[in-house]
Formats: sequence, C-alpha cells, structure tokens
Amino acid sequence: MPAEMVELRGHIIDSLTLAKVLDLIITRGAEYTVAEIDIGKTQSDPSRVLLEVSSDDPELLHSLLIDLHSQGANRLLTQEAALEPCAQDGVLPEGFYSTTNLPTKVLVSGKWLDVEYPEMDCAIVIDSSSLNSRDTPQATAVPMHKVHTGDMVVVGDRGVVVEPISESHESASFHFMSSQASSEKPKRLIVAKVAERIMVTRQLTPPGDVLAVCGPAAIHTGAGQSLARLIRDGWITMLFAGNGFATHDLESNILGTSLGVSLREGNQTESGHSNHLRVINEIRKLGSIQKAVEQGYLKSGVLYECVVKGVPYVLGGSLRDDGPLPDVITDVVQATDQMRELRANVNLAIMLATTLHAIAVGNILSSKVETFCVDINQAVVTKLSDRGSHQTVGIVTDVGLFISELADILSP
Amino acid sequence: MPAEMVELRGHIIDSLTLAKVLDLIITRGAEYTVAEIDIGKTQSDPSRVLLEVSSDDPELLHSLLIDLHSQGANRLLTQEAALEPCAQDGVLPEGFYSTTNLPTKVLVSGKWLDVEYPEMDCAIVIDSSSLNSRDTPQATAVPMHKVHTGDMVVVGDRGVVVEPISESHESASFHFMSSQASSEKPKRLIVAKVAERIMVTRQLTPPGDVLAVCGPAAIHTGAGQSLARLIRDGWITMLFAGNGFATHDLESNILGTSLGVSLREGNQTESGHSNHLRVINEIRKLGSIQKAVEQGYLKSGVLYECVVKGVPYVLGGSLRDDGPLPDVITDVVQATDQMRELRANVNLAIMLATTLHAIAVGNILSSKVETFCVDINQAVVTKLSDRGSHQTVGIVTDVGLFISELADILSP
Amino acid sequence: MPAEMVELRGHIIDSLTLAKVLDLIITRGAEYTVAEIDIGKTQSDPSRVLLEVSSDDPELLHSLLIDLHSQGANRLLTQEAALEPCAQDGVLPEGFYSTTNLPTKVLVSGKWLDVEYPEMDCAIVIDSSSLNSRDTPQATAVPMHKVHTGDMVVVGDRGVVVEPISESHESASFHFMSSQASSEKPKRLIVAKVAERIMVTRQLTPPGDVLAVCGPAAIHTGAGQSLARLIRDGWITMLFAGNGFATHDLESNILGTSLGVSLREGNQTESGHSNHLRVINEIRKLGSIQKAVEQGYLKSGVLYECVVKGVPYVLGGSLRDDGPLPDVITDVVQATDQMRELRANVNLAIMLATTLHAIAVGNILSSKVETFCVDINQAVVTKLSDRGSHQTVGIVTDVGLFISELADILSP
Amino acid sequence: MPAEMVELRGHIIDSLTLAKVLDLIITRGAEYTVAEIDIGKTQSDPSRVLLEVSSDDPELLHSLLIDLHSQGANRLLTQEAALEPCAQDGVLPEGFYSTTNLPTKVLVSGKWLDVEYPEMDCAIVIDSSSLNSRDTPQATAVPMHKVHTGDMVVVGDRGVVVEPISESHESASFHFMSSQASSEKPKRLIVAKVAERIMVTRQLTPPGDVLAVCGPAAIHTGAGQSLARLIRDGWITMLFAGNGFATHDLESNILGTSLGVSLREGNQTESGHSNHLRVINEIRKLGSIQKAVEQGYLKSGVLYECVVKGVPYVLGGSLRDDGPLPDVITDVVQATDQMRELRANVNLAIMLATTLHAIAVGNILSSKVETFCVDINQAVVTKLSDRGSHQTVGIVTDVGLFISELADILSP
Repeated sequence: MPAEMVELRGHIIDSLTLAKVLDLIITRGAEYTVAEIDIGKTQSDPSRVLLEVSSDDPELLHSLLIDLHSQGANRLLTQEAALEPCAQDGVLPEGFYSTTNLPTKVLVSGKWLDVEYPEMDCAIVIDSSSLNSRDTPQATAVPMHKVHTGDMVVVGDRGVVVEPISESHESASFHFMSSQASSEKPKRLIVAKVAERIMVTRQLTPPGDVLAVCGPAAIHTGAGQSLARLIRDGWITMLFAGNGFATHDLESNILGTSLGVSLREGNQTESGHSNHLRVINEIRKLGSIQKAVEQGYLKSGVLYECVVKGVPYVLGGSLRDDGPLPDVITDVVQATDQMRELRANVNLAIMLATTLHAIAVGNILSSKVETFCVDINQAVVTKLSDRGSHQTVGIVTDVGLFISELADILSP
Repeated sequence: MPAEMVELRGHIIDSLTLAKVLDLIITRGAEYTVAEIDIGKTQSDPSRVLLEVSSDDPELLHSLLIDLHSQGANRLLTQEAALEPCAQDGVLPEGFYSTTNLPTKVLVSGKWLDVEYPEMDCAIVIDSSSLNSRDTPQATAVPMHKVHTGDMVVVGDRGVVVEPISESHESASFHFMSSQASSEKPKRLIVAKVAERIMVTRQLTPPGDVLAVCGPAAIHTGAGQSLARLIRDGWITMLFAGNGFATHDLESNILGTSLGVSLREGNQTESGHSNHLRVINEIRKLGSIQKAVEQGYLKSGVLYECVVKGVPYVLGGSLRDDGPLPDVITDVVQATDQMRELRANVNLAIMLATTLHAIAVGNILSSKVETFCVDINQAVVTKLSDRGSHQTVGIVTDVGLFISELADILSP
Repeated sequence: MPAEMVELRGHIIDSLTLAKVLDLIITRGAEYTVAEIDIGKTQSDPSRVLLEVSSDDPELLHSLLIDLHSQGANRLLTQEAALEPCAQDGVLPEGFYSTTNLPTKVLVSGKWLDVEYPEMDCAIVIDSSSLNSRDTPQATAVPMHKVHTGDMVVVGDRGVVVEPISESHESASFHFMSSQASSEKPKRLIVAKVAERIMVTRQLTPPGDVLAVCGPAAIHTGAGQSLARLIRDGWITMLFAGNGFATHDLESNILGTSLGVSLREGNQTESGHSNHLRVINEIRKLGSIQKAVEQGYLKSGVLYECVVKGVPYVLGGSLRDDGPLPDVITDVVQATDQMRELRANVNLAIMLATTLHAIAVGNILSSKVETFCVDINQAVVTKLSDRGSHQTVGIVTDVGLFISELADILSP
Repeated sequence: MPAEMVELRGHIIDSLTLAKVLDLIITRGAEYTVAEIDIGKTQSDPSRVLLEVSSDDPELLHSLLIDLHSQGANRLLTQEAALEPCAQDGVLPEGFYSTTNLPTKVLVSGKWLDVEYPEMDCAIVIDSSSLNSRDTPQATAVPMHKVHTGDMVVVGDRGVVVEPISESHESASFHFMSSQASSEKPKRLIVAKVAERIMVTRQLTPPGDVLAVCGPAAIHTGAGQSLARLIRDGWITMLFAGNGFATHDLESNILGTSLGVSLREGNQTESGHSNHLRVINEIRKLGSIQKAVEQGYLKSGVLYECVVKGVPYVLGGSLRDDGPLPDVITDVVQATDQMRELRANVNLAIMLATTLHAIAVGNILSSKVETFCVDINQAVVTKLSDRGSHQTVGIVTDVGLFISELADILSP
C-alpha cells in the first residue's frame, strides 16, 4: 500500500494541529500509523510526531499529502525544491506549489530560505538572478497575476517546510474554542484586552503597525469620531477601506449641519439621500481627499486624520460604488497589490464590520499577524476563520459601541 | 354581494393602520370602496375613514371582518355586545371575542366600558354581579384558563370597539421604519434616547414602573453590576426573568473568588462547570433568595438589590431548569398570572437578550406600554414585533455594552 | 412661515407612500396641512393628495422637499427643468438632481420626457444635440463618472416628477409586511410562487430577461447542477456574479474526480485547498471560459451552459480575487457599466446568497424590476430593502435547497 | 508545588479531548508535565496520556481538577467513591459530584458501577438499600429536585471515572470542524446523510427510538404534512414539543378551509388571528388531543399520527402559552421528568427549529445519543454545542425545506 512519512513539529497539541491532521487523514479514507511521538513535557516545549500516512489509492494519497502539508505536516525527506519557469505572464507552471499564510521555508541551492510575505494561495518565486550567482537567493510568495515569463516557481511540495500554527498563550489570552465567536461574553473585558494588545504592538521596537479595516457601519453606528481619535493619537497607523466607508466619513464631517439635524434628533430616517453624492462630486472636483484637506473643505474625521498624520490608507473599489471618490482604486487587482505594498510592518489587524474587506485582507496577511474581527453577525466572524485566517479572534458585538469604548480607553 | 361598513379613527395614516387594513382586504381577495374619508389636516388631528368591505364569499367576509377589527377597523353599527356564560371552567363559549392588546371598549347595558388590561388573545369577561344591579359593570380581558362556569363572556364583535395603534411622535422619536431593527444605527444616541425615556417614565405623577425582562446573557456579557446599579438607584422597578438569569446573577456575586480567577484574566473558558449548581443547592437549603440575603449569603447583584429595595420580581420556570431555585415558579401558568398581578403600573418595558420572555411578557402588556427589545440578533427583535407587540422598538446591539452604557448615563 | 405644496398620486395608501411621506415631514420637525385629498374608491383607483409642507427653517424645508421628492411627492408647479452643463469630465454641476430608481419624467422644451434607465443616485442628462433642434430630446439617468464636459444636466427638482412606488397586487402575491423577511413562512409555497413569476416573465411578448445574481454559496450548498439546468432550459437568461462563484462552478465541474471524493462521501472537510487555483491557472492559460469550453476543458456547469446557450454573463472583480479568471472585469466601474449595458430587458431578478452583488445590482435596476433576494441571513435581506431597492421581496431560506426545488419545478 | 496525576484514555487526539485539556490547564494559569504518553498507532487504537497538573494555588488546582474531570481527565488513584446522605428533600450534600452527559463509572463497594442515564448537572445517587446487602448497588444520575432525605450521594470526584468523548468516525461522517455549523454546505447531501442515520437507527436490534424535538416553525414553514408522514411511517418514534407547536399543528389540520384561503393563495398575512384560540378552546372542551381524535375532531397531522400510531409525546409548558392545551404539562419540572421517563431507548434525536427545547432536551440526553440540530440561525446551533451537548451536529438550513426533503427520501 502506498505510504509516506510526514512530520509535525511545534505546539501541535494545543493548537489542534495534530487533531486536525489525524481527522483529515481519516475523513479522506486514508490510514495512519504513529511512527514516533514526542509530546512536549510542559507547555513551553514543542512536540514532534512522525506519521506514516497510507492509502490504496495513490491519487488520493497524493492529494491528501498536499492538504496535510498546508497544515504543517511536512514530508520527511530533505530534498531541494523543484523549480520550473513560467512560460507565460500571469500563468504558473502546472503543479506549482500553492502557499498558505503560515511561516514557510524552502530548500534552494542547499540553503533553507524563509519565504517572504507568506500569503494564502500564492506561488513561491525564487529570484532567478541569484540562482546562478553566489548571492543567497530570495524566495517570495507571489500571487498568480504577478508572475512573469521566466520566473522560477517552486513545483510540488518537495523542499518546502511549513511551520504549523501555534497559539501564543502568553500574549493573547484569547482562545480557539469553537465558542469564541459567541455573543455571550463579558464585553467590556474583551474591549480592554484588545486595547492592551494594541498598546503592546505600539510599544514594540520598532513599533508595529496597527491596521484597521473598516466597513461603512463603523460610521453608521456612530463611531466615526472615536475612530478618528484613535488615528490622531497614533493607535491606528494604517487604514484599508472602501468607497462607502470613506464617503460616509466625509459626508458626516463635511455636511455637519444638514446631517446634524437628523443626528441631533437621533432620528433614524435616512436623510438627505443625495448628500453623499454631493460630497463625492465636490471631492472629484477638487481632485483628491488630500486636496480637500489642503483647501479646507475637509476639516475633521477619520480620513482627515489620516491625511494630517500621514497615516497610509488604501480605498479599494467595489461594484457600483457611488462616484467613486478619486482616491478609490477601481481596479481591484491594483488595489490589493497596493495593500500588499503596505503590509510589511503590520503586527495587529482589526476588522470592523466588513465581511468583504475582512476576508480579502485576512488572506494577504501572514498568520503571525494578530487579527481581531469585530462584527454583530456571528456568521461573518465564523466565515473569516473558515477562509484560512485561523489566527483570527472573533468578537461578536456592536461595532459602534465597541469602537467608542476602545477609544475611551486608548484616547480618553 | 355581501358587504359591511367599517370605520377607522385616529392617527391611522402615519401609524400605517389604514395601509395595513387596505392591504389585508386585498390580500384576502375581498374588495373595498371608500365611503367617506377625512384626513387630519395637520399631524395633531385624527383622521377618519369609512370603508365598505365586500366579498362574494360570506365566510371569507366574516373572517376578514374579525381580522380587520383587531386592527381597529370597527363595524359602524352601535349595538350592545352579546354575552354568553361559560359552561365549564377554563372553556370559553364558542364564538368568544378574542382580544388584542389595543385599547378596547365594549358596550354593555348602554354604557361603553373600557376593557381593563387589554392583552392579546384573551376573552372579555363582564363582571356578572353588576349586570343585574345598578352598578356600572366592569369589563376585563381574561385568559382562557381563568374563566369559570357562569362567567359572562363577550361573543362576536358586536359592541366592541378597538382603538387603532397610534404612534406618539412627540414622545418617542423612534420610528416604525422597516429598518428600525437594523444594526447600523448610531448606538450611543440610541442608548441616550432610552435613558431619557426611562427618566420621563420615572418622573410621571405617580412615577410609572420600569420593567426589565432579562435573559442570562445580560449577566454573561458582563452587565450584571450595571443592572444592579439601575435597580439600586430606582431606574428599574420591576424584574421578570427565569432560573438561568437568576442563577448566573447569584453565582457571579456569591462565588466571586473562584469565578474571579477567570473574570480577572478575562479568559473565555467555561470554568467551574458545577459552580452554579452549588449555589442553587445552597439557596434551596436556605429556602429562598430573600433568606440568602438575610443570612448574608448573598451580598450584591441584581437580585440582592431587588430584595433590599423591595423591587418585585417574578422568576418563571422553563424546561429543565437546573435546581431550580426555590423562588422559581415552576408552573408556567401560575408564573404568567403572577406577572399579570404586577403589570398594572408598568409604563415602560425593556427586554434584554431574551426571546422567550420577551414574547411572553410582550403579549401580556397593553400596546400603551413603551417597549424596547434589545438583542444582538435581528431575528429576535423582528419576531417580537411580528407576534403582536407592534409598539416594540427593536434595538440590535450588544446587550452587555448597551446596559453598561445605560447605567453610565443613569447611575454614573 | 415658508411653505410649499407637494402632490402625491397613485397607489399611495397601500404602498405606504403617504404614510412614509407624513412620517418624514414630522420626523424632520416640519409641519403639514392636507389641502386636498382624494382616496381611490376601490383598489384599482389611484389616489391623490395635496399637502402643504412648512417649516420655520428654510434650509430644513429645502432639504426635506428633496427627500420628499424622492418618495414621489412632487412639487405642484409645472416648470421647465433647469439645465446646467458639466464643466469637467466626471464631475456634475453643483445642485444636480439626484435620481431614484422610480419611474421619472422631466419637463424639457415643453415636453415631458421619460428618463431612461432610472437608477439610484445618478444625474439626468439631456441629450444636448437635440436641445437646439426639432427632435424630441432624450433624458437618461447617468452615473457621475460617465458625464463629460458640456453634458446638459438637470439641476434642482423643478420640472422633475417621480411616480411613487405602487405595489402590483395582481401580479405579485408577495407583500410588504415588515415580517416579509421572516424565516417562518411556508417554504415550498414560496418556491412555487417564484417559479410561477419566472414562467410569467418568460411568457411575456417579447419574453423578459430573468437575471440571476449569484454568490459562491450557490455552489457550496450544492445547487450548481440545478442552476445549470435552469440556464440550459431557458429560465435564467442572464448571469451576474464574481470570481468566487465562477471559480467554484468551474472547479466542481472540472475536477470532478478529486473533488468527487469529498462530495461522494459528503464530508465537510475543505479538500484540495489549491484545486481552485489550478483551475484558474489553466483557464488563464487557455485565455477565457469560452475557450475552455471550445477546447473541451469545461464540459458542464453553470458557466458552461451560459457559453453554450449564449446567455450573457458579467463577472465583476472584488478585492483579492484568486487569479482572477481572465473573464473577470477587474475594474469595478467598468464591470458595473457592463452590467448596465445588459439590463435593458430584465423584468425579474433573483439574488442568490450574495450581499455585495445583490445591493450593487439592485441599485442599477429600475423599481419596476421584480426582485427576489434569497439568503439564509435575514440581515442581508433587510439590508437590500434598506438600500433603496424597496421593491425587493426577501426570502430567508437555504439557497441550496431553494434552487434545487426551483429547478425541480421548472426543469424537472 | 501542589500537583496531581490525571489520566486520559480513548480517542483523545481526534476528539480534541487532549487539546482541550491542555488548553484548560494553561488558560487557568496552572502547569503540566507529560508523564507518560501512548498514542494509538492507528485510528482504531485508543491513546493514553498521563499528565501531572500543578499550581501554586491549591484552590485553583482543586477547581481545575474538577473541570478536567468533566472532560474525562480522571485522577489516577483508584479509590472508593465517598458517599454522603441527603439531609433534606431536594437538597444535595455540600461537595456533591456534579455529572456530565459522558459515560461515567463509579467505584462503590469494590465494584465499578455504570451510572445510569448520564445527564448534565445531576448528582450520582447510589441506591442505598443495596449498600448493606449483597446485591450489586445501582448508580443513577439524579437531578437535584428528585433526591430525598437519606439518599446516598457521591461527593468529591474520588472513585468516579468519566470516559472522554470519542467521535465515531465510521458511523457519522459528520465532523467536529468549527465550521460545521456553517450554512455553506451541500444541503441535499446532508439531508441524505441524516436520512441514512435514521434508517440505521431504526434497523438496530431492537430498533432505537428516533426523537423529534420540534418548534412551531416546523409547522409555519410548511413542513407539517411531511413530519406527519415521518411519524406515520415509523421513522420518528417520539415527539417532544410545546404548546405552540401542538396548537399550530392542530389549527392547520382542523381549520383547513379557513386557513386554506391564505395557504392556497400563499399570501403571507397572518390570518384569522383567533383561529388557534378557538381550536385550543375546543380541545379543552373535549378534554384532550386523544379525545379529539376519537371524536373525529382531529383527522390528520403530526399529533393525529402520534395518537393513532401510539407514538409517545410530551408537550412541555412555557410562559404565557395560549390556553394551554389540556395535554400540556404546565409544571416545567414535571414536564422534564416526563421526558426523562421516555428517553431510555432514544438513539437519535433531531431538534427542529427550537432553541429552548433543543437545549433542554439536549441536556437530559447522554452523549451517546446521536443528535442533529437543524435551525436557520447559526447562533442557535452553536449555542447547543456550547451548552454541553458536544455530540450535536449542527445543520444551518431552512427547517421547512429540510423536513420536506427528509420525508421525500424516507416516506416518498
């Protein structure tokens, strides 16, 4: 019966990695034998397990091994990675190795290279110039559309080692329990924990970036001013959002008076249904949000603080955006590439009421980035974890109240 | 073609009553003609519409008229109500008039009597002793299980007039829009509005009762102390809940230390899975929550404040309650009757994270009671309105943060 | 006190239009007097109401009138629309009239012109060549980004008349009740109703287009084959979707065997995490979905049927799409414009498990298009109605079972 | 440092038991050392782990050990269980052992006794008569309210061994993945799987009972007839529900014609708002559902089939039930006890659209009972698992369509 040895190392018990790996084998109808096992004596010691995975069906075994690999179950054999050149721009060689967002190493020219920017569903490209020189080659996770003819790409999973996810118990105090996304948790404590994690991130040397990914509800629920304070005071250092969020931020700050009526009364009627269009139109006339600040048209709010503080932001387009604002990158591939440019130093990401952007951004971040997903809808929170961003801590709560309380702690 | 005239009076345009009535007629396949119409010139003036409703099918017409009546479309004819005696305890005469929670009048012995405690799905019982005397008879909405042999019950809808729902624009500032239950609203403003409504209620002469109906999540989400403050300071003057809420309140206050560990660390693991049972057991030994307070076993929390302040509470039983606590009324019919005893002076009710109790209590309250239903799940909020408590304002938010902020305003 | 007369005509009672208009006036703090009223005697007769709206605050009155206008409360004065030229590509003149998706007329050169393609949040452009000639000018709703320097645009709301929404009782049998989105409805009956509406649409002369707007869950929940049958048999004649939907459709049809394992066993483990990338890569190599069909790489499924039947489809891009497929239009503005090109003949649209696309497409369709939004999440369904697509019938159910049963009826 | 040895045996890796245990230790701030480990070589072999758990804080250690025990981490020492008598009816001795729903053994008089009816949050009572005789004593899980003065109750966790949960891979094909409750699964496959499990249960020797626990939405969503067929044909052999479910079942079957109107038209308006009361009143007059069948008043439906087939049912009361029906047990403690009487032979339970009953019944069933929880709301499904019924497979779908399709398979 065809069989292969795979190895798991690290905190594989309490991160559920071993359990998931065994379950995957059985679920697919394959079998396993535990060849060696060495469980860490204490919580700080890593564990190591050697499994023989077997199946009658060689194709099933092959596909299973690929999936096990993406969980950190690496084949034992130490072999050089196989490389193949791209024959066409934007098209990978058949059999390309498909990355996860876990820390990954690849063995090329006798050296274990760390793959830069591990990201879901990319290829590993080995910087080809170095291959024939004495320089240490560089390995990078590259999305399909960015490869060029001649790029050397890892094919198969030989020579690729993935480090299984391991929860950092010391730091996080947030746990993996399936009920983590439940709405029935002590909420002020959770807000305080997130505040603490943001502080820790900003006190790193050098300080880590804190990325906020925001949906329009962050403004609708009345948290715009709190969010602006968090940016002004340096707690949030990067912003990814869309045309809707930006428009509502601008509208609520520029048309204070007219919207003021409805806000002052607190009534819930949609007012001034065309106000946002007039703001967009004006910004289009001025040329950009930056210019709107320079010319005194925009004097407060989230994007105002971004411009004034030099906090980088990316506004990604979406189908049928109104306008859109001139700052919105309407080509979604370019918008995502722009986000990739900025992510290098992000240590903590907080997703606020945005399914689409949360999943998109979650997928371009390494599993090392501490990620919080805040939404009133449990299904959204669950979905993000399901889509590969396993490190995400889901918080089911009201985004408006959550941000307000977070700002009360960090920027009182 | 069989036809009947029905009349609508009041704020029937902006409360949607006229629209619902016309829709109901068409949906059922009947027809209408507008005989007279008099729309209030300004928002303070009531309107009046006289409709002729007709259908080929007399049975359909009959059933439709009953349903129109429950919306406040009263037959024009001024006739004495027909009365029939109950032949059996707990069983109504066939054809009994079934009440709504709208203000209702009934014409008996030439007098229009206000029906006391209008409540959904009850019968109207006319106090029979008075019928043959010169006293003004009394009309009361009585649930089926409470009628006795010989009780005189209104049958048919002759002589019964229902006042259509009318939104009070001045007071509430909360509106009927279908989107009212949306989670995307400025939340701190909404909290402030509810706080204001509670203050207004307590400043009435005499002060109105503020009823809180609570589910266990009010405690899980960490709002127990805030809720206790609201009771201590006299903002909440009545409490309806179940065994789960009471148990979690007691447990979190009595086992401070052991639960303290997990609360201090803020971790989300269920700890001390049997702690609540030990608390229940101890209270059972002591005999009641009141005795637990007297003997110093219970020293803080929501129920502690209720006992100390003399705030009346009803704990209604539910299937497979742990214990239950000795104060829990395990017979659900008795528990509901106990709630009915207390409701007379309730002007404002706030439902906190409890589907079951929210619907049950909503159904025994008059439509005049200002009702807020707070839940993180939009479906719960919608369900309450669908089940007849049309006056309910739904607020989709995190109950833990909501109560904390409410207490920060009212009991800083 | 500043005041204006506005007029409402049509089925304004049962469509709730009058109620909404009065509520809006009061909520904003303005006042009204009913000057004239003429309620349709029967359900087939239109009604007419003339209101005087007044307020101390002229700015408030101005803004209120704009919002009333978007509900169909037109100013009484019959005046020519004011036109102003655009001074810059993609920027509208200040004070431009902002459209709704309701049927709209505009008075230009003494003629009432129907605005073509009424769509939310656009400008009305009057074809300028005709203005100086004897031809009847043409009025079109144009999104901001498509206007050019010199285009003549309607400013203010003079000369613009909006027809209030009127529910078509005969046809739909679906109603506006706030509970329409509830999950507690007889589901097979609802499926049958939708099937009937699709049949009616296809039997029009000429047959109306039936547009399906699909999210990936339509495939995940196992309804791909049913959807393909509905296209093959001509029930669905247009498809809007994204890269995710298309990829999952292709993957499930192309990698039958490998995915077959997991589908055959019905297990719920994510299998072959890179399979979809390999399929995308292959399609990129071939050049397009069309070529994949021609070369025999794609032999079944939703997109296969689209290609074979010549059913037009638009795949709109989204942030961090994998690949994306070569057919995906990555510029979201272009993608939306492409959808606009195709919409002319759409009479019925069905949104299947897609928040983002549902709202986007809903906003480019006229209120005359019968729209069904099917989702397991009530919040999604509510959101679509809130965002202006008031004509939408929400159906809270499982998309997988819904489509399967729909296909069992239409394509047994 | 205080320490204790605990032992885990069984399928503790793939059931996540080991991972949960280690996580619990760390989360609480205690420490562990792996003393011995023996992982099953293949999936059919059980594993065994011996852990030393330690903490500076003896109270924390004590409380931790209790919680570990409830996960199946048994103390190593083989000691007789300590017994103490109850001093009062309905009150347990302090320090009573609190049960889980996992298979449990207790060492009494030198014999390991299986605890009968393991159920969450009960005490273990040792049948005292046998203690002094030669008979093998009997150990039973007894809820607090049922103990009597003098009953011998296990205190502390000495001598109690809990078998960790172990997923049965062969049988279920449903897995523990956190995403199990997601709505994005191939739905017809899942229906087929559940049908298969019901068939397997009914083909056991002797056949296992299949329990359906139903909420009113099972009727509202139009699945009443399908459910009735499943009972008639012997697929469902026990029914637990409430007054609401029963009332809607009776109403839809008895008032066919009048409700028929609205059902025939499929319109969604609540019709005949008092119909259900008239049916309840009539059944109260007749005396019971059984008598309603005998006298020909009830001729079809779910409860009709129960009566005719002799399928046992329990209707448990709830706050403010209309009527209630004479068959409803209004005392919730008695109702639960009645359910306990019937559960002995239940092998499979299916919860249909009922949060309250699902959690209540889930808590009185052993972890060996295969349990499916079907609801359109993911939060409900998650809640059931969180509340201790870990064996539950959650299925997020439309109950109406689910039951209809299930009946199409089992009772075509």
